[in-house]
Amino acid sequence: MKLNCDLGESFGSWNMGSDAKVMPHIDQANIACGFHAGDPLVMQKTLQLAKQHNVSVGAHPSYPDLVGFGRRSMKCTREEIIALVLYQIAAIDGVAQSLDIELSYVKPHGALYNDMMTNIEVREAIFSAIAQYHKPLKLMIQASSNIKEHRAQAEKFNIEILTEAFADRCYNDDGSLLSRNITGAVHNREKMFAQVKLLKEQSSVITINGKHLPLEVDSLCVHGDNLEGVKAIATIRELIR
Amino acid sequence: MKLNCDLGESFGSWNMGSDAKVMPHIDQANIACGFHAGDPLVMQKTLQLAKQHNVSVGAHPSYPDLVGFGRRSMKCTREEIIALVLYQIAAIDGVAQSLDIELSYVKPHGALYNDMMTNIEVREAIFSAIAQYHKPLKLMIQASSNIKEHRAQAEKFNIEILTEAFADRCYNDDGSLLSRNITGAVHNREKMFAQVKLLKEQSSVITINGKHLPLEVDSLCVHGDNLEGVKAIATIRELIR
Amino acid sequence: MKLNCDLGESFGSWNMGSDAKVMPHIDQANIACGFHAGDPLVMQKTLQLAKQHNVSVGAHPSYPDLVGFGRRSMKCTREEIIALVLYQIAAIDGVAQSLDIELSYVKPHGALYNDMMTNIEVREAIFSAIAQYHKPLKLMIQASSNIKEHRAQAEKFNIEILTEAFADRCYNDDGSLLSRNITGAVHNREKMFAQVKLLKEQSSVITINGKHLPLEVDSLCVHGDNLEGVKAIATIRELIR
Amino acid sequence: MKLNCDLGESFGSWNMGSDAKVMPHIDQANIACGFHAGDPLVMQKTLQLAKQHNVSVGAHPSYPDLVGFGRRSMKCTREEIIALVLYQIAAIDGVAQSLDIELSYVKPHGALYNDMMTNIEVREAIFSAIAQYHKPLKLMIQASSNIKEHRAQAEKFNIEILTEAFADRCYNDDGSLLSRNITGAVHNREKMFAQVKLLKEQSSVITINGKHLPLEVDSLCVHGDNLEGVKAIATIRELIR
Repeated sequence: MKLNCDLGESFGSWNMGSDAKVMPHIDQANIACGFHAGDPLVMQKTLQLAKQHNVSVGAHPSYPDLVGFGRRSMKCTREEIIALVLYQIAAIDGVAQSLDIELSYVKPHGALYNDMMTNIEVREAIFSAIAQYHKPLKLMIQASSNIKEHRAQAEKFNIEILTEAFADRCYNDDGSLLSRNITGAVHNREKMFAQVKLLKEQSSVITINGKHLPLEVDSLCVHGDNLEGVKAIATIRELIR
Repeated sequence: MKLNCDLGESFGSWNMGSDAKVMPHIDQANIACGFHAGDPLVMQKTLQLAKQHNVSVGAHPSYPDLVGFGRRSMKCTREEIIALVLYQIAAIDGVAQSLDIELSYVKPHGALYNDMMTNIEVREAIFSAIAQYHKPLKLMIQASSNIKEHRAQAEKFNIEILTEAFADRCYNDDGSLLSRNITGAVHNREKMFAQVKLLKEQSSVITINGKHLPLEVDSLCVHGDNLEGVKAIATIRELIR
Repeated sequence: MKLNCDLGESFGSWNMGSDAKVMPHIDQANIACGFHAGDPLVMQKTLQLAKQHNVSVGAHPSYPDLVGFGRRSMKCTREEIIALVLYQIAAIDGVAQSLDIELSYVKPHGALYNDMMTNIEVREAIFSAIAQYHKPLKLMIQASSNIKEHRAQAEKFNIEILTEAFADRCYNDDGSLLSRNITGAVHNREKMFAQVKLLKEQSSVITINGKHLPLEVDSLCVHGDNLEGVKAIATIRELIR
Repeated sequence: MKLNCDLGESFGSWNMGSDAKVMPHIDQANIACGFHAGDPLVMQKTLQLAKQHNVSVGAHPSYPDLVGFGRRSMKCTREEIIALVLYQIAAIDGVAQSLDIELSYVKPHGALYNDMMTNIEVREAIFSAIAQYHKPLKLMIQASSNIKEHRAQAEKFNIEILTEAFADRCYNDDGSLLSRNITGAVHNREKMFAQVKLLKEQSSVITINGKHLPLEVDSLCVHGDNLEGVKAIATIRELIR
């Protein structure tokens, strides 16, 4: 099981995250492509940082919404989604190659990720964008009870799926995440570490209703927004080494 | 001598230019990359159009200024220019490759182009961006009396230069363009066609002061903003065939 | 019954609409505020044009989405909608006052308009923004079978409603518009003029199912995107004079 | 002598500054209007905070350059500058009035401020924007050896000038700021406090060459980007009380 984290989410004069502190602990960096965060310079520097730490790089494309940080669902057409995902993949891939880095996967950001998980049309638009790209890229999605169906859909586009689970989020019985509006949606440290151990040792999580839910997980998503978060990542790194 | 034109400069719901009418007449399409014009969908469609007409494709990167259409000089740092040029080249190259099109050159847009011609720091930042890109790309610049110096500078970065002249603009004695603020800066049809013929037959232009100025020109820049412009392009196409 | 039209929707170097040709024929100009179209200079010039023709001015606020022209619904929070509507009203009002023009109403644009008509939360956020504004402004909404309910809701915020109908759109039995995806959604000239006459003479429209639907209408929305549209506006002007 | 600080410079999910900690110590808040920083929600909240602390509010307009934080000079035309300054003043004024706050002055931001100080055309465009605004607003500029000339120019537009000095910046003999590229451009704490005292007691600063330079100063500009900065503001507050 690997560790992935959203990085490169500063923008111009605004800093976000502790990229330099997180990078040494993770395996996969999902790097913003300029549509919800990141700018050409931030992207370049984040890629260099990933290279220094030998971290695998993924494109982290988003709806075009800087002020909303890509967290607001936008009703885009299928062809708009294809075009904007393709553009963002291309931008980061070309800059990565220029730094002698190979882009290896795509993980949509925020609302685009959520829409991909719940809306077949958005999911197929993303599949289509990746399939149209001139080199093979994997797609990182959320491990859930629908994973077989998702894999079957992706296979039609010849796309390999990477699954991820969230270290700090409480799960519903169907493998979706408990809404952030509900108490208990985000685990405290202790519960988070327990969830990580269970995922590592038994490939499962305990849902909000106490059910053991099996989840095939290639990678764990962690957050390094502040010093506490960075410390927790270091701990998780030890747990799953 | 080839014909090049700035294309793909629509944006969202706003149309600009007559791309579909211009494309059949030209050899090289300078395609906007989203920073002064163009959006992911417009870029994709313009690339497809270029492919249909077997037109060579160049990146047309700009300062980040949609509302100013990239026509306002911006005091960017060297590293900002490198990063933003690299990002735009990468974006269009990846989308082009996905359509089985090979990007072959870079022609900066508007104020970035003008700054490149007059400011060595901007010029070197652009050279550096192209040199850093993971595949060789030519740089299209204005043919002027400084062309030897420009070629020598580019050579240090291992960059091949393409020179262009403007069909419809009056030249100063030093090969720079007469400022648009001065009467006679933009030729009428007749003078434009005469300038094209002279460029073709004698590789020179007659300057504002009546001087014969030799100009080595690989490509002629034409504009297809309206129906009159498109007709003129068709005529120029005949003249230089 | 008055005539209203969306204007000031150019942006930077991109033109849209035939504002100078439409303005002489209408009573109310819904002027873009910079979030889906319009920029500070375009807004200023459009306001001056409205003043010359003695046309009443309304703010035409939108979701922040230039590339999507405000036509894509965005999941904004209540407080985000309040803030963005308030900001846009303030911007145009202050510029209008500086030209000695009084802003008199608000008509949301595109997806924000549609969401307002179908989603009570969006509607209340817009009511709230207008109610918070430091001077009274009317709100223009679509005349439909829900108009009583809408008026009652607006009254709680002390907001006066202006109703509008669409000259060229076919109506469902409930007073909503037939979706643009369905054949017959947009009337041809003849049907449009017939609809305008019926609205004027009998305050009703004939729905897609042939039903006579009464609609109280303060204003007719017309479109002047091209020369044909401008001509039609001139004809409608004659019909309802 | 008052204290002013640039505030409201967060944007969407990105935080900047310690507005809540700075506000209690200052007299005048220069609030971003959305073109270099600030968004409608941030602006609203910053205005509310200013009101709570009884702090006077100024518009802090900028060139349109989010990614460059308004720090890069842009070659805008006179009419573009007038329109963009007017738009930003209008936006913040209308939102302020809706919170029962009176906007009292304008202080341009970053590159627009610098261009105003050195370029008469930019300065006159800003004068013109303020003069066109429908209510009188003061303009805050840098106290320098040119202050008489600047006041005379402003008077032609009927604009009252507020002068400011920088607590932490070293001055040239002509009252301009020593460039940040030169060592000693930014004072350490001790020198900053000494400069504040001298300004308060003798209305002068000691320049880089040791000269006593008289400066008429209405307000001192301070920065609260981090905790150290906030502490320094509290100390300065005591010094000039």
